Amino acid sequence: MMIIKVGGGKQINWDHICQDIAGLKERLILVHGANWQMEEVSKKLGQKTRMITSPSGYTSRYTNKQTLGVLTMVYSGLVNKQIVAKLQALGVNAVGLSGVDGRVWEGEWKKVVLSREGSKVKTIRDNFQGKVTKVNDKLLKLLLENNYLPVLTIPAISFENQLINVDNDRAIAVMAKALGIKKLVILFEASGLLKDTGNQKSIIKNIQANKIEDYLKYAQGRMKKKILGAKEAVQAGVKIIYWADGRVKNPIKKALKGKGTVIK
Amino acid sequence: MMIIKVGGGKQINWDHICQDIAGLKERLILVHGANWQMEEVSKKLGQKTRMITSPSGYTSRYTNKQTLGVLTMVYSGLVNKQIVAKLQALGVNAVGLSGVDGRVWEGEWKKVVLSREGSKVKTIRDNFQGKVTKVNDKLLKLLLENNYLPVLTIPAISFENQLINVDNDRAIAVMAKALGIKKLVILFEASGLLKDTGNQKSIIKNIQANKIEDYLKYAQGRMKKKILGAKEAVQAGVKIIYWADGRVKNPIKKALKGKGTVIK
Repeated sequence: MMIIKVGGGKQINWDHICQDIAGLKERLILVHGANWQMEEVSKKLGQKTRMITSPSGYTSRYTNKQTLGVLTMVYSGLVNKQIVAKLQALGVNAVGLSGVDGRVWEGEWKKVVLSREGSKVKTIRDNFQGKVTKVNDKLLKLLLENNYLPVLTIPAISFENQLINVDNDRAIAVMAKALGIKKLVILFEASGLLKDTGNQKSIIKNIQANKIEDYLKYAQGRMKKKILGAKEAVQAGVKIIYWADGRVKNPIKKALKGKGTVIK
Repeated sequence: MMIIKVGGGKQINWDHICQDIAGLKERLILVHGANWQMEEVSKKLGQKTRMITSPSGYTSRYTNKQTLGVLTMVYSGLVNKQIVAKLQALGVNAVGLSGVDGRVWEGEWKKVVLSREGSKVKTIRDNFQGKVTKVNDKLLKLLLENNYLPVLTIPAISFENQLINVDNDRAIAVMAKALGIKKLVILFEASGLLKDTGNQKSIIKNIQANKIEDYLKYAQGRMKKKILGAKEAVQAGVKIIYWADGRVKNPIKKALKGKGTVIK
């Protein structure tokens, strides 16, 4: 069994991804982002995206009540159901879920976060970010055992029953542990972790799992969280992680053949 | 077992409804609308709502590609997950689904519809409305047997795998038949079917199921579809339908006590 996680970039090719999924014999859980559609809808609604950087250097989307609403619409509504329909068209019996449904993704609501802005650190209070710390695997197992493919996305639910924005990559680590999953495929808009971000051929082919943090120097922006997620996944018992290109034909087959970056 | 269907009006009190659901011992499926939130989001996006009236006099939302996108966001994303979180907070293990998930609500896509405008009948081609004709009950049964409460809403999926806008009230009739459900509770923003729409006390207390169509004269706008839905539900084997007020305390208990209109 594996988890396939697909980023929310505009160039991600969902037709190719769904084609590959329809051909897989292995059981899997699909996790997806929806960042570019979120940007589009936010723009139309006249809402500005603001990123915040934690004191330790990780960026995330500033999530106030309004952002949370748009995020819930776009991720668990618009994009989730489009992906489910695409899979259904290929004969895959997909079921879309957010982390709220059956409390699948449960965690802490960080009501206050710190944001580094230049040399200052600011306190942000109207915050609906959080972190998944508990995966209620019962519903996922029930669906998988009955040959449904769970298609999962944010929001998650906090212990106080608040919808929260969480990081998909880090949620996956907790989910892998809960379900004993050893293999992750992470697709994004690059051919792998690159030595030189300007050169798609400068793929770092292999990373030793226990040395993953050494590669933080090659990671920019969102990629830093993927490294953190990978580190947490390895600690959670994951044996192999494939980072690969979500824009190409047969993206999953290629990932599994080691065309991107392999962490083990 | 029963189906509870809650309309999408602004005055609907979800706190009261969820409180009542948490106290019920009977298994149920919850179906919800989201009309006022749809209006709100459409307004913010600068999209106008256009209603169309079929030659036989039933009104529905004109659904082009854009409307379908907003509808999918608002119904199956924003509102569905808010209801699920509210139920989860009361200890009810709710799982939100659209008709697309597991193809639960499947049906015909009406690519072309007719719209009566004054004395003319126009043909509308970019249409994403449809009608549920098949309910795939396997997923619903699986969830119900494992003590999950399915929280269902539009869109549905067409036989060609297109997301489609369908009428909830009529989908319920098909679902009741597939699952052998005999009891429906329909909550909306009125105390029942009224003889005089201006007088909330003029409730028609009892309707004989085989005479439901005689009451079309009391129905305005959306209420006409509820009568059609009720007729179809009775034909599908439903024995009793409660139409009642979704704005009051203990709305379901009151409905079941016959405080609104009872069709049997």
